[in-house]
Amino acid sequence: MRSDIDALMQTKNIDALMIFGNAEHNPPMYYFTGGGHVSHATLIKKRGSEPVLFHGDMERDEATKSGLKCVSYSQYDYGAMLKEANNDLLLASAVRYQSMLKDVGIASGRVGVYGTYDISAIFGVLTHLQKLMPKVEFIGEPREDSILMRAMETKDEFEVARIRKMGQVTTTVVGKVRDLLVSSNVRDDEVLMKEDGTPLTVGDVHSKIRLWVSELGAELPSGFIFAQGRDAGVPHSGGNPSDLLKLGQTIVFDIYPAEAGGGYYYDFTRTWSLGYATPEAQQVFDQVKEIYDTLMDNFDLNTPFKHYQNMTCEYFESKGHKTLLNTRSPVEGYVHSLGHGVGLNIHERPFSGATVGDDQRLKSGVVITSEPGLYYPEKGMGFRIEDTLWVRPDGGIEKLAEFSYDFVLPMKKWKKT
Amino acid sequence: MRSDIDALMQTKNIDALMIFGNAEHNPPMYYFTGGGHVSHATLIKKRGSEPVLFHGDMERDEATKSGLKCVSYSQYDYGAMLKEANNDLLLASAVRYQSMLKDVGIASGRVGVYGTYDISAIFGVLTHLQKLMPKVEFIGEPREDSILMRAMETKDEFEVARIRKMGQVTTTVVGKVRDLLVSSNVRDDEVLMKEDGTPLTVGDVHSKIRLWVSELGAELPSGFIFAQGRDAGVPHSGGNPSDLLKLGQTIVFDIYPAEAGGGYYYDFTRTWSLGYATPEAQQVFDQVKEIYDTLMDNFDLNTPFKHYQNMTCEYFESKGHKTLLNTRSPVEGYVHSLGHGVGLNIHERPFSGATVGDDQRLKSGVVITSEPGLYYPEKGMGFRIEDTLWVRPDGGIEKLAEFSYDFVLPMKKWKKT
Repeated sequence: MRSDIDALMQTKNIDALMIFGNAEHNPPMYYFTGGGHVSHATLIKKRGSEPVLFHGDMERDEATKSGLKCVSYSQYDYGAMLKEANNDLLLASAVRYQSMLKDVGIASGRVGVYGTYDISAIFGVLTHLQKLMPKVEFIGEPREDSILMRAMETKDEFEVARIRKMGQVTTTVVGKVRDLLVSSNVRDDEVLMKEDGTPLTVGDVHSKIRLWVSELGAELPSGFIFAQGRDAGVPHSGGNPSDLLKLGQTIVFDIYPAEAGGGYYYDFTRTWSLGYATPEAQQVFDQVKEIYDTLMDNFDLNTPFKHYQNMTCEYFESKGHKTLLNTRSPVEGYVHSLGHGVGLNIHERPFSGATVGDDQRLKSGVVITSEPGLYYPEKGMGFRIEDTLWVRPDGGIEKLAEFSYDFVLPMKKWKKT
Repeated sequence: MRSDIDALMQTKNIDALMIFGNAEHNPPMYYFTGGGHVSHATLIKKRGSEPVLFHGDMERDEATKSGLKCVSYSQYDYGAMLKEANNDLLLASAVRYQSMLKDVGIASGRVGVYGTYDISAIFGVLTHLQKLMPKVEFIGEPREDSILMRAMETKDEFEVARIRKMGQVTTTVVGKVRDLLVSSNVRDDEVLMKEDGTPLTVGDVHSKIRLWVSELGAELPSGFIFAQGRDAGVPHSGGNPSDLLKLGQTIVFDIYPAEAGGGYYYDFTRTWSLGYATPEAQQVFDQVKEIYDTLMDNFDLNTPFKHYQNMTCEYFESKGHKTLLNTRSPVEGYVHSLGHGVGLNIHERPFSGATVGDDQRLKSGVVITSEPGLYYPEKGMGFRIEDTLWVRPDGGIEKLAEFSYDFVLPMKKWKKT
């Protein structure tokens, strides 16, 4: 949680955080500012002190809305610095950052750098800044293990409420997509048709998903997946827009909207087969659902997340599928890990891969996904079930939005003959 | 243009480009891949050779769609590297990057680093990589002056066609917003009303804008501005959602949608006053329109862009307004520079500020904005007119979408008494 930041800085021996970039679509900055139309900003937080937000003059109103202490870049005479630096933009920026650090009381120590932003410019500036400030050590942290990712790992009730609200948006959109599909006309060759007599394409469904998410005031900053057949069998294939929708094919619908402006995410997947399922697909689906349910019964407070990845691999291997347990980089079977934390990042701590530390646990306050799946691209099939879960302070595991797990969706205007 | 990259690398003495991050919403990566659902990728381009895209196994299909030479990360035994590095994630990543660079033939020389991505992790990895490869110098470039920004500065006809299409989307949405406003009912106190009898808010208009942009298959990755009164007088204020819309107030509507997935932008602004304008507002608007028109008549092939910034400042100062010409960081008057290039970045070369180089010219193939404005927040007024312009190979200056410049929008259901 946010309140853990000073303690985490202490543990990692970091004297200040320096965050670069925009307030939106930049989780480290958003975590402090709460978003807003503030671009090319810099936030500096000394350990034990309140953060200071440096921003352009034109964005002073938006910056002030953050409630943080704000300082305009115009307080620094960049023109003079640029002249002094013989028009070396990176050096002049470094000189300005040196002044900003000095003004918040940083002249030595270890400074962690963060933000989703232009790597080239910041790397160039930091190279200069390191030379200008030899008593400061600028530090990059691994994404999975940074102070900010560790703070973000556990959520307070306000954050959970926002994620829950995105769960509502998500299931509303998924319900609309299901209604669109099941109420479609079906041609003799089992292709879904639109009202206008042309086939319904995967691209048509993609457009509707974008529209409905937008109507509900949310965004799809990391895209989404609505993929059928072979594409459903490749976990991160978005789906081919020109494909026609056909009965009896598996559809993987993985949708992860976020609050507008780069806020909190929800993550959710269902697998469908329209009209009917092939016996083979039904059997594989049932296995995914069985382990999904077993996991829900077994998730337990403070257990390492990877324990459940292992449980899932063992179950799938017992059913004859390849998994990461005994196969390196399988392209069929269970080819990914079980889940991840969800928050301002679509993927954040805790992670569930076999190589992550035992400290990535189902701690009180984490919000995670559980998403077992099986993939057979060459057979034209893929399956995944996913919900977003909150580990409550009382140790209960709460699904943050409800939606039916039905695999076969009966078509309203079609009957199996 | 893309075809200039090798020559630009030669000029800057850069032996390879290394681009980090996702294919979407990451202009340097998008420039090579054309977007697509490829995340946490790395692209390495040696000078004189084709680029190579390194990607996760699960995204192999999406990576292949780029048409680039693709290599899966799974070709490298990261598990063994991590073990060797005592679980130091940054060091293990650096070791993998060392192998990747070696495999594309880079063992020494100058390597430029790029991408909009997690600064912390990449800075940490590059710190290790620099030690592992002392014969390589890793280089960060200033955003405005990087090889990629210089290549992107001039557009080919396919890029211009895509920007023009976004211009069509933009003016369609702006037309719908205008229609919504002028057909609203007006209460006795000159507040606009919705059909349901409640006031129309700025937030209602924001929602409609998001919806209509989405319906047309575009995105608003950098937000937009629809702001009234004092907010219109602060150039980057997005607008206060709870404000009611009132007659006779200036509205600045600045909208810059991009192709879905982080593609090409368009940039456009109109200023409106509903029903009527105050005489003072009309006078200031007329000045903005006059310099806008003068600029359109004067833009000329190969002239430095800042020449027109100067022309605009001189005109506005002659009318008694403060500008950057003689005031440092003014908060009223003409407070910004004239325009900027538009492409995969909403702001890119050429820039028009007084401190930029003479090489930022109206070269053949650039796409720029012209956006003079005047701001008086304390008087509750702001004004800006903006279009996106293409400098054609024949030297002509072509506006990429047409839309009326009318300031006062007559209300259909209201008449001035």
